[in-house]
Amino acid sequence: MSIIVLGTLALDSVRTPSGERQNILGGSAAHFSMAARLFTDVHLVAIVGSDFPKRYVGFLEKKGIILTSVVKGEGRSFRWRGEYKNDLNTAITLSTELGVLSAFKPTVARNQRGIEYIFLANIDPEIQKHLLGHMRSTKLVGLDSMNYWIRNKRESLRKLLRKIDIYLANEGEAKELSGEGNLLRAAKALRKMGPSMVVIKKGEHGVLFYCDKFIFSLPAYPVHRIIDPTGAGDSFAGGFMGYLAKQRKLRGADIKKAIAFGVTCASFNVEGFGLNRTSKLTMKELNCRVNKLRECINF
Amino acid sequence: MSIIVLGTLALDSVRTPSGERQNILGGSAAHFSMAARLFTDVHLVAIVGSDFPKRYVGFLEKKGIILTSVVKGEGRSFRWRGEYKNDLNTAITLSTELGVLSAFKPTVARNQRGIEYIFLANIDPEIQKHLLGHMRSTKLVGLDSMNYWIRNKRESLRKLLRKIDIYLANEGEAKELSGEGNLLRAAKALRKMGPSMVVIKKGEHGVLFYCDKFIFSLPAYPVHRIIDPTGAGDSFAGGFMGYLAKQRKLRGADIKKAIAFGVTCASFNVEGFGLNRTSKLTMKELNCRVNKLRECINF
Repeated sequence: MSIIVLGTLALDSVRTPSGERQNILGGSAAHFSMAARLFTDVHLVAIVGSDFPKRYVGFLEKKGIILTSVVKGEGRSFRWRGEYKNDLNTAITLSTELGVLSAFKPTVARNQRGIEYIFLANIDPEIQKHLLGHMRSTKLVGLDSMNYWIRNKRESLRKLLRKIDIYLANEGEAKELSGEGNLLRAAKALRKMGPSMVVIKKGEHGVLFYCDKFIFSLPAYPVHRIIDPTGAGDSFAGGFMGYLAKQRKLRGADIKKAIAFGVTCASFNVEGFGLNRTSKLTMKELNCRVNKLRECINF
Repeated sequence: MSIIVLGTLALDSVRTPSGERQNILGGSAAHFSMAARLFTDVHLVAIVGSDFPKRYVGFLEKKGIILTSVVKGEGRSFRWRGEYKNDLNTAITLSTELGVLSAFKPTVARNQRGIEYIFLANIDPEIQKHLLGHMRSTKLVGLDSMNYWIRNKRESLRKLLRKIDIYLANEGEAKELSGEGNLLRAAKALRKMGPSMVVIKKGEHGVLFYCDKFIFSLPAYPVHRIIDPTGAGDSFAGGFMGYLAKQRKLRGADIKKAIAFGVTCASFNVEGFGLNRTSKLTMKELNCRVNKLRECINF
């Protein structure tokens, strides 16, 4: 079993009430992979710049992430600088430097084109579409995006939504793209745009899932100290898609459990800067906390 | 089995994206009672002005609320005017007219002083303390408050917190009173101020419960159309405390189920203006939706 993820590998500089880190390994594909690796082989598709530290490549390889389709471009790596103040739910972007990302055309090695579980992490929807065009047969395609693309490439995004199965959006994105203020109505409107399943990520408030057959909702796992929320949404997606890729089934019970694993991966993600916590995470710890989450909500 | 609630009976004028209502029956005690009546006898302690419509008194009586300790003061009734824009989580207060509330000293009829389940809904903490002084023996005392009292009567509130069992606060209040930005830490800090149980109400995001033995969290029940959120927190409290008063037990399982009933009462509350929906609510509908809520979260 395998999953392929397209997204970014980034050098993140982040300041939170717990401290500050410069140029740490980040990006949507990195956070996704670090969670998904616990469930399945993860093939990562991304571009890095010529300045990308070798030790980061080694680190990902050591974690078992398959980097065949990570290319090195001429120029600087994608960089994000951001800050969280007391409201840890909201990232304040200080700067974004696209670098090599601006001319990225993803390619997929021949032996990866048959992978049936695909996640298109946040990146330009045209790049996402391009990758999807490489894949031979798809079983489950998940898509993430962000406000920037909703505003600037809405048509590309709308076209892409017709080709995918699961759309993951955060609260603000779901409301903006659907034009609905109520989350449940937003989810329904997004469902009508194409994807049979919609996941709305609500940060510290958990997740709302919508499909024609049922609605599912989980609070976030209550964490004592949030160190750095960066990548929590991608960690959610990694746990969620990773679990589904491992199960190879899409019954209601599988989806619900996948969401619980996603929520739990996200709760570990926020307990350290960057990939600090998720890179050390074991399946045993994850299972243990999924059970605790169940205790937290069962009545 | 009985519960006694101290709070406000108000004339509310509210505008939401769904419409507008003038001088409808509202107030913390009214919303609380309308939910709690489904579980137990509800004795209401409040003051109304000489202009308070008789039909509202008749309406509460018809719903079985016991009004022995509702007094009529000289002057105008307590009035609240507010508005909700697209963010239905946040009420914008346009005006508050205290009227008779400013000189209110609650009295409790002799035959009500032995009631062991007590809810001190949002009102001046000195009035809350005054009521508590009337009660002979208490089994469970719940307390709600608001930012205004946290800012202006912090010491009175802090003293009161040492005498009660359950403190219910919304997210902003919990953070403000505790000085903690993280909800779980806020809950812990509030627990140290006295109450053995802390409930943090997160509006459309549900509830977080904290006590020394366990943490419990539920998302809100997903509602298709929110008409008017006014009173949702008090409806939660009514369902929660009402259930506990009926059970007369405080095991973990009772508390968790009480929270589920509270969350469900709140979900009905927001489906109509003022008391429109909760006043028509039946135990059968409530049970049915509690089961649906369980389906929504079980994995």
